Amino acid sequence: LSAGVWAAESNDPLPSWSDGKTKQAIVSFVEKTTRQGSPGFVPENQRIATFDNDGTLWAEQPVYFQLIYALDQVKKMAPQHPEWKSEEPFASALKGDMEKLMASGKEGLMKIIAATHADMTADEFSENVSQWLKTARHPKTNRPYNEMIYQPMLELLDYLRANGFKTFIVSGGGIDFMRVFAEQTYGIPPDQVVGSSLKAEYKVRNGKPEIVKLADINLVNDKEGKPVGIHRYIGQRPLFAAGNSDGDFQMLEWTTAGKGPRFGLLLHHTDDKREWAYDRKSHIGRLEKGLDQAKDRGWTVIDMQQDWNQVFPVATP
Amino acid sequence: LSAGVWAAESNDPLPSWSDGKTKQAIVSFVEKTTRQGSPGFVPENQRIATFDNDGTLWAEQPVYFQLIYALDQVKKMAPQHPEWKSEEPFASALKGDMEKLMASGKEGLMKIIAATHADMTADEFSENVSQWLKTARHPKTNRPYNEMIYQPMLELLDYLRANGFKTFIVSGGGIDFMRVFAEQTYGIPPDQVVGSSLKAEYKVRNGKPEIVKLADINLVNDKEGKPVGIHRYIGQRPLFAAGNSDGDFQMLEWTTAGKGPRFGLLLHHTDDKREWAYDRKSHIGRLEKGLDQAKDRGWTVIDMQQDWNQVFPVATP
Ligand SMILES: [Ca+2]
Ligand SMILES: [Ca+2]
Repeated sequence: LSAGVWAAESNDPLPSWSDGKTKQAIVSFVEKTTRQGSPGFVPENQRIATFDNDGTLWAEQPVYFQLIYALDQVKKMAPQHPEWKSEEPFASALKGDMEKLMASGKEGLMKIIAATHADMTADEFSENVSQWLKTARHPKTNRPYNEMIYQPMLELLDYLRANGFKTFIVSGGGIDFMRVFAEQTYGIPPDQVVGSSLKAEYKVRNGKPEIVKLADINLVNDKEGKPVGIHRYIGQRPLFAAGNSDGDFQMLEWTTAGKGPRFGLLLHHTDDKREWAYDRKSHIGRLEKGLDQAKDRGWTVIDMQQDWNQVFPVATP
Repeated sequence: LSAGVWAAESNDPLPSWSDGKTKQAIVSFVEKTTRQGSPGFVPENQRIATFDNDGTLWAEQPVYFQLIYALDQVKKMAPQHPEWKSEEPFASALKGDMEKLMASGKEGLMKIIAATHADMTADEFSENVSQWLKTARHPKTNRPYNEMIYQPMLELLDYLRANGFKTFIVSGGGIDFMRVFAEQTYGIPPDQVVGSSLKAEYKVRNGKPEIVKLADINLVNDKEGKPVGIHRYIGQRPLFAAGNSDGDFQMLEWTTAGKGPRFGLLLHHTDDKREWAYDRKSHIGRLEKGLDQAKDRGWTVIDMQQDWNQVFPVATP
């Protein structure tokens, strides 16, 4: 690289974001809220930024990656559960019949979650997820799932942190699942990950203290659950919130209803060449209310195709 | 101050701790875990320190300060509730008959909590606590409650943070209550406060989004609940845990059962001149199992009278 190119690159904290209204809106918000003496200045301890995960920080097609994890675990556990061959939803899961699996609804999903996420220690669960991430590959790109992440969002997280923001994940995904990779992948430590969770209990077994995951839901951190999760875990209203679906509507609503400058950001998946294009009618990550109301509410919508000159990071060799 | 005294003071990160085994144990643990190349070295992202609040960071006599808050609120609300004059536990609360109030047990306490901590927005609750802290005074010392804090613990928190530890409160007290003052008082931001909590819901009322506190318990962050709260909120095992009662036993057990060096610290209230002396038979902050097992478990016990040359900070004028 010539010195000139290098200098230009290193001066731009958001190189994967194309110049345009979206990038401008982000940069001007950060400058306004962090410049001493600016009328919109916000003290560092109030600079809270929350990011949805599925479809916002990493991809979510063809289905949520955590569901793929659960189904892979069902396959792995099947030899110990011969009864699953004729028992729904496990039979469909083992056959890979997604349509029939989805037809089993919340009750079916809860059975899959109970079998793959509960009745084990928190350490065992983390170890399983960690092993899976090392070997599982995305069906379309053949990348590890934790490389199906958005380069522009990594830059945005870094940029916010460099400006004194504390960055959090606030996702419908499982908190214990995300905590396995969030720090290495996004620079977000376990205590700054908020997600859906099961109940847990503390047990001393054979003199060894353990946290045991129970098949009982503690928090569904989605839709109205997101502001509740934010209240419960973070304890103050965010200054900046980013999501991609109507599951994030209430988080953005809660965030941008706060006093003073606030930023609501929605990622619109418009790029069927480099990623996927989906919104109002998608079975996953449906974005309808958000698109309809973004303008009136002053939320910024990222057009992936236009606003991002790169989607995924350069693959690790 | 002479230059010499100044230098000596500024070199000691724990000036309110008397020289001796306790101070030595703390300093040598911190040095061992933070010195690059030391066999006990722990990376910064794993340096988690958790502190109980009542009786560990601030005093808890004659009764938990949050209970005093609740009773003060009952008095404040009484004119709107004439029925309380003849309705327990409110009648006893209004008469200041603590013995009869305590006899109403968990059920009575839950009624007091419901009346003073629920059916209001999170913002209203915080505002009430904040107002109370400005005007309420401790019955014995006449200090504001958030000045009934331990100077040596403030120094310890600072010392740990200066060495790359992330400091958390993990208390049986109410999370929303503590978050009002924890940052200003201890330098611990709201998202690093873990405590007992009520359920909450998100509601949009007259176009205004609100978090409403419900009269329904979410987490009792005490005893076995502490490791569960740590798992839920922090997501990794602490390296260092400090408490003062058997309500902290499981937190210290969970912490010190981890691999590598770990530190368990118990504050023994032994100073009836400068503070209070209580342990095995106290109605509040009972410490029995911890005292019996500390030695075997390798936990360090602070003898307040011996180990602290100052208890409370110099009062603000
Ligand atoms: Ca999403
Ligand atoms: Ca205590």
